[in-house]
Amino acid sequence: MPLTASVIDDLKKVAGRDNVITAPNDLRIFERDGSIEGAVPDAIALPSNTEQVAAVIKIAARHNIPIVPRGAGTGLSGGAVTIRGGIALQMTRMRRILEIDPVGQTALVEPGVVNQELSLAAAPHHLFYAPDPSSQKACTIGGNAAENSGGPHCLYYGVTTNHVLGMEVVLADGSVHWVSGDAADRIGLDLCGVLVGSEGTLCAITKIKVRLLRIPPSIATLLAAFPSIDTASQAVSAVIGRGIVPAALEMMDKVTVGAVEAHYHAGYPTDAGAVLLVEVDGVADSTRELMAAIRDVLSENQGYAMREAQTPAERDLLWAGRKGAIGALGRIKPNYYLHDGVVPRSKLPQVLSAVGEIGVHYKLPVANVFHAGDGNLHPNILFDLRDREVLQQVEEAGEEMLHAVVELGGALSGEHGIGLEKSAYMPWIFSPDDLEVMSRVKSALDPTGLLNPGKIFPDPERKKLPLAGRTGFAVEAKWW
Amino acid sequence: MPLTASVIDDLKKVAGRDNVITAPNDLRIFERDGSIEGAVPDAIALPSNTEQVAAVIKIAARHNIPIVPRGAGTGLSGGAVTIRGGIALQMTRMRRILEIDPVGQTALVEPGVVNQELSLAAAPHHLFYAPDPSSQKACTIGGNAAENSGGPHCLYYGVTTNHVLGMEVVLADGSVHWVSGDAADRIGLDLCGVLVGSEGTLCAITKIKVRLLRIPPSIATLLAAFPSIDTASQAVSAVIGRGIVPAALEMMDKVTVGAVEAHYHAGYPTDAGAVLLVEVDGVADSTRELMAAIRDVLSENQGYAMREAQTPAERDLLWAGRKGAIGALGRIKPNYYLHDGVVPRSKLPQVLSAVGEIGVHYKLPVANVFHAGDGNLHPNILFDLRDREVLQQVEEAGEEMLHAVVELGGALSGEHGIGLEKSAYMPWIFSPDDLEVMSRVKSALDPTGLLNPGKIFPDPERKKLPLAGRTGFAVEAKWW
Repeated sequence: MPLTASVIDDLKKVAGRDNVITAPNDLRIFERDGSIEGAVPDAIALPSNTEQVAAVIKIAARHNIPIVPRGAGTGLSGGAVTIRGGIALQMTRMRRILEIDPVGQTALVEPGVVNQELSLAAAPHHLFYAPDPSSQKACTIGGNAAENSGGPHCLYYGVTTNHVLGMEVVLADGSVHWVSGDAADRIGLDLCGVLVGSEGTLCAITKIKVRLLRIPPSIATLLAAFPSIDTASQAVSAVIGRGIVPAALEMMDKVTVGAVEAHYHAGYPTDAGAVLLVEVDGVADSTRELMAAIRDVLSENQGYAMREAQTPAERDLLWAGRKGAIGALGRIKPNYYLHDGVVPRSKLPQVLSAVGEIGVHYKLPVANVFHAGDGNLHPNILFDLRDREVLQQVEEAGEEMLHAVVELGGALSGEHGIGLEKSAYMPWIFSPDDLEVMSRVKSALDPTGLLNPGKIFPDPERKKLPLAGRTGFAVEAKWW
Repeated sequence: MPLTASVIDDLKKVAGRDNVITAPNDLRIFERDGSIEGAVPDAIALPSNTEQVAAVIKIAARHNIPIVPRGAGTGLSGGAVTIRGGIALQMTRMRRILEIDPVGQTALVEPGVVNQELSLAAAPHHLFYAPDPSSQKACTIGGNAAENSGGPHCLYYGVTTNHVLGMEVVLADGSVHWVSGDAADRIGLDLCGVLVGSEGTLCAITKIKVRLLRIPPSIATLLAAFPSIDTASQAVSAVIGRGIVPAALEMMDKVTVGAVEAHYHAGYPTDAGAVLLVEVDGVADSTRELMAAIRDVLSENQGYAMREAQTPAERDLLWAGRKGAIGALGRIKPNYYLHDGVVPRSKLPQVLSAVGEIGVHYKLPVANVFHAGDGNLHPNILFDLRDREVLQQVEEAGEEMLHAVVELGGALSGEHGIGLEKSAYMPWIFSPDDLEVMSRVKSALDPTGLLNPGKIFPDPERKKLPLAGRTGFAVEAKWW
């Protein structure tokens, strides 16, 4: 429903004339995020500070207009899609790093700061920000906090919630609060704990205080080939079972390795059934000792063609291949559909075999590139949207893959959130009673359901739509 | 208000005749926890399983009777005190370790399992449970989860919330839910995040799934003397500033060292102004390298008389001195009053100097023994309760110390919770608006305020009492 002229005028008064977008063609720019669905917002507001965020939300509350906070739009679960219309609250103009405290090892940032920029800014102090989504060149710290994002190095360092010490947030009534999640003063009820990862359904985030870590003095990065996904999975379990938690432990299957090697020439072994990328960090003696132990375990599990990066440039190249893997898959098909279910590590061979069979059944190529150490899958279903028939097949295959994950005792998402795309599957994991408790917390903080409606919680109406009815939108190739 | 015969009868029907205590003399056993205040409950229920917990809570809900879940009663903030009467829900009969999964490195336990018993049970699998409150020989995992407890090794390993993967909880309506806080499937709203540390105000905890860690292959423990608290504090900042996070980094002042040495003969240097106990763990090369670096930093900061434990027995003795320090202080005065404010590490010299001055002003001896690496103070105000005049002085001195902490940008509690004793100080940290948001979450999950009333949130009536009016209770010496 288009906003009235008077509401638009109010928005322009608080955010500035040039910071409110309502022209239909411009609105389409914000139609989607990195997921498969889209919807055009009624307006876009681009606030520059907390006061403007609070004022915009107050206007929305007064007129009962949905508000959808939004970062760089790299999310993979439809969290930033304005499925019920309303105002997209685009936070990327709030992109100042307000403080880096090298002694306390913290940073205070605005939500629009790009993930990688924070680590670059902290580097002169020999510090870095640990959570590193593969989209880190584009995604924002605010979006990361809203989605509780992960990344390859979260195996050792933990996900975003483990690094957020506090946040300034604006609630659905426009009130501004500081919530602290610092273990050192997590007193009273830990609201920060429930607001991180609430996917824009409980608050808009306007400032984030994060922990910075010392850049490790020594980093060792190893690529190893395996005859099959099964043997590589066994090696993953064996490494962790030996009591070693590497900084990162990533797997790529044969399809992915082929695409990556063609694109990056990083020296990935294209004959392998799967490769592992393993990284350890710490003091030099310790990384040498750990890497030697890891090489032994990998060898015992049929690992071969092991290659350790000898220079920082070689390390960067190995990682560029991993972090750019999904982009490289564009060589095979222009579009992909990606879920990020999690299984216990011991179930990796089973679930990957199920994923493979589902791909064969639907005649859809599937490429696996994922956080093996966490048991966090990323099966990429590859397709070409120009074949309009294929989309329903893709969604059904994705749903079957997630179902296989849940049947093996897994969870719907490791780091991409529930958003729009997985909300219908929440009842696979949660009883109606459990969901009701969650919705009581939602109602306590957002009684009218203003903030990011239609996300996380299953929508009874939406569920009744046939899958095909959900997909009238164009899907573009994504580069991250 | 005594419960009616019919309510008591109902309780006995669900929990068993012998598992409901109402005899006045027996009730007094549960009058207090490890804090300074007490109140006699109207009844004690000792449930054996989740169904009984749910049934007891449903009876309480029907009759609007307060419910106060309770573990071993070692808490230091009055969290388990039935200040509004009602039913003390004593969880210590639910003390089974239900599962230890050595591959997944997790344990599923009932809430009454004693902290140290879990590590002992996990030891044959070379695993341990990291959070280690000094009361770990007595305190329970359920109490730890309710209070988000810390301990010396939480500097490196994090507090309880970082180790809880999921919980079975009973809400105020008697409904039973599983909430997951596992980073691997923290999907939807992170209710586990807000329930851990909610101090019995949101739920009773009936099962806890925790992460177990590999016992490090090598542990190095060092005791170092310093001329003063100031120099020791500077050494603490210097170690962390060098990018080293030891597994534990504890400080004891001269008063404490004297008492500990008289009691344990652990070889603590009694001439020192302060001592640090530093521990690092990992693979052998790494601990050697780290400990060498730490020794250098300590030396540069006037550390002397450094002594590294050469055998596990020596290490145990050094730790016995630290963990038994508060008990040893009984040699000086029979009673103590203890707050656990937290300051930024860089503020340690300032806050300790303020604490000292407050002690002098009130003519009360103060012994400091605390988690220096975290900036988490534990000033023990020592007194003799037989001198009834002194108690008001003690509480006022404690309040002034906490005020000094907050003035230096610190927080009310690092690991002991807010409970009863610090609830009146919550407005020092939180605005009325902030507290109102917290109370909205409380109301969403416990609309009638049944669970542990009078805790965390400041009680306007209570605040008006003069300090002296709050203290009509006996205080016993505590041993942990």
